[in-house]
Amino acid sequence: MKIVITGGGGFLGFKLAKALLARGRLTGPDGREQEISKIVLLDGAFPAAMPTDARLEAVAGDVSDASTVARVVTPDTGSLFHLAAVVSGAAEADFDLGLRVNFEGTRLLVAQLRQCARPPRVVFASSVAAFGGELPAVLDDGTIANPQTSYGTQKVIGEYLISDYSRKGFLSGCSLRLPTIVVRPGKPNAAASSFASGILREPLNGVISDCPVAPETGVWLLSPKRVTEAFIHAHELPASAWGTRRVLNLPGITVTVAEMIAAMGRVAGRQVMERVRYVEDERIRAIVRTWPARFETPRAIALGFQRDPDIETVIRDYIADENIRVA
Amino acid sequence: MKIVITGGGGFLGFKLAKALLARGRLTGPDGREQEISKIVLLDGAFPAAMPTDARLEAVAGDVSDASTVARVVTPDTGSLFHLAAVVSGAAEADFDLGLRVNFEGTRLLVAQLRQCARPPRVVFASSVAAFGGELPAVLDDGTIANPQTSYGTQKVIGEYLISDYSRKGFLSGCSLRLPTIVVRPGKPNAAASSFASGILREPLNGVISDCPVAPETGVWLLSPKRVTEAFIHAHELPASAWGTRRVLNLPGITVTVAEMIAAMGRVAGRQVMERVRYVEDERIRAIVRTWPARFETPRAIALGFQRDPDIETVIRDYIADENIRVA
Repeated sequence: MKIVITGGGGFLGFKLAKALLARGRLTGPDGREQEISKIVLLDGAFPAAMPTDARLEAVAGDVSDASTVARVVTPDTGSLFHLAAVVSGAAEADFDLGLRVNFEGTRLLVAQLRQCARPPRVVFASSVAAFGGELPAVLDDGTIANPQTSYGTQKVIGEYLISDYSRKGFLSGCSLRLPTIVVRPGKPNAAASSFASGILREPLNGVISDCPVAPETGVWLLSPKRVTEAFIHAHELPASAWGTRRVLNLPGITVTVAEMIAAMGRVAGRQVMERVRYVEDERIRAIVRTWPARFETPRAIALGFQRDPDIETVIRDYIADENIRVA
Repeated sequence: MKIVITGGGGFLGFKLAKALLARGRLTGPDGREQEISKIVLLDGAFPAAMPTDARLEAVAGDVSDASTVARVVTPDTGSLFHLAAVVSGAAEADFDLGLRVNFEGTRLLVAQLRQCARPPRVVFASSVAAFGGELPAVLDDGTIANPQTSYGTQKVIGEYLISDYSRKGFLSGCSLRLPTIVVRPGKPNAAASSFASGILREPLNGVISDCPVAPETGVWLLSPKRVTEAFIHAHELPASAWGTRRVLNLPGITVTVAEMIAAMGRVAGRQVMERVRYVEDERIRAIVRTWPARFETPRAIALGFQRDPDIETVIRDYIADENIRVA
């Protein structure tokens, strides 16, 4: 079975690819377990240290380029994990760029998937940025998507496209609305949520981190480990599990910025937590303010998706997984 | 002020154009009333009897053709009423046609509207086909859109596009989810809801009408008169009235097929109601089954939108407006 991962050079896509290579096999929506013969990563750039694995192919290109999509999504494609996106801050700053990659890219992908020999499995990384405007204190599976960012809008449109293409039988898709992923390794990025990892990652590396939002700001979060598991679990669920609704709010935990920093102090010491400085950034605050922080996700739990036990475990897992030597 | 009406050759678009010509003036989202200098109707075909009015221009063309859209939506366009669509039954039967007109057409229109000298007012005719799947007995303003038709999906995607373009200030838009419009004059069309008018219109014209759904089937309906008023009312509401949510379920009334036929009997006589025959059509039933029949619409009522008083009034208005001589 051939698997395509868009955004495969990014942190999550690459982590997913490694997990899939380690597993070697994957079950599809029809319940059949198959050997993974090939994983094609599509992205603009890739990590310097790529695993040497005959099953792995990296294609440098743009998901909004029709010829690239046609070259990558060949008729033998069995599965697509669609993670590529222009992130929230960047899509807000450059509307046309977001529209091209997030909207047009998804449209091109689903159109190309109709050329596949068999309806492929599609797992789409959507986002809680789907929610915004006047929100209840606690969101649930019945809360309407009313995004107040272009990124959120483009994700929701992708959800509807994938749901309708699935209903028509062109593919077998589902959309997972990801919480903010914490702790994200690497460098800060243009996502408005970048701070949520930065206030842990940078101090653990001995670097000062500027936190653009207030200490009481709540973050609805999920760890890289759990979201990788969620992508694979979603892929392996039988098509019937989704019923008439192919969009799901993933489970997460609500942690305030202050709680995140305090947990880091308990795990790594007081001197580490003192490396966070509060430096207001109204542009970031304005975006983050539209995001919800508290959810109930009974449907995801019933479908077998898992949340992290607590923020301390998330921090300890990050230190272990990324071989961090706390400075 | 120049106004564009897509679907302007269709029944509703044409009725709206006549109402606007009769008014002569229209208030925009900024609260300024302006004289209507021009109304451009874009559609594939037009009624034989067009009013001779110097302000009226009919352009034959396709809303999914970029050059046509650029020709019609010129920079001096002040308002767009976007009513053009491939209807539900047709979009389900021909997925690519629906995608091209309903999805690509709307995308082209909003892109072209960014070229306008001032952000134009946009009133988009969406539909209760936005709803489907497992639904509560009574839907309300918080019910999530989960369409189970491609038409419904394409309408919802249009709503999200128009909301985001509005939030970005490129236009000032709103989307109205129309109930089934009853009584629609003219001929049956490919809409799955065509029967809802047909079971009244044909018998009143002395013609037998086949009803494809069961007598107890509920229909959430609004008259042509009220929906025309709703388009104009939505246009004239201040932009601030919409807040962060630019999508609205219009008010309507719930009437069963049996109640519609009985009301017709009271208005026009027993011999007229006997012209309805029940002839099951599983394709139509399967689509109509996914549509909701009962709503509460407190937000629309608070914003000043109006429902019809009852089905008898709807039938009497139709007979009067269309100069029907009951056969």
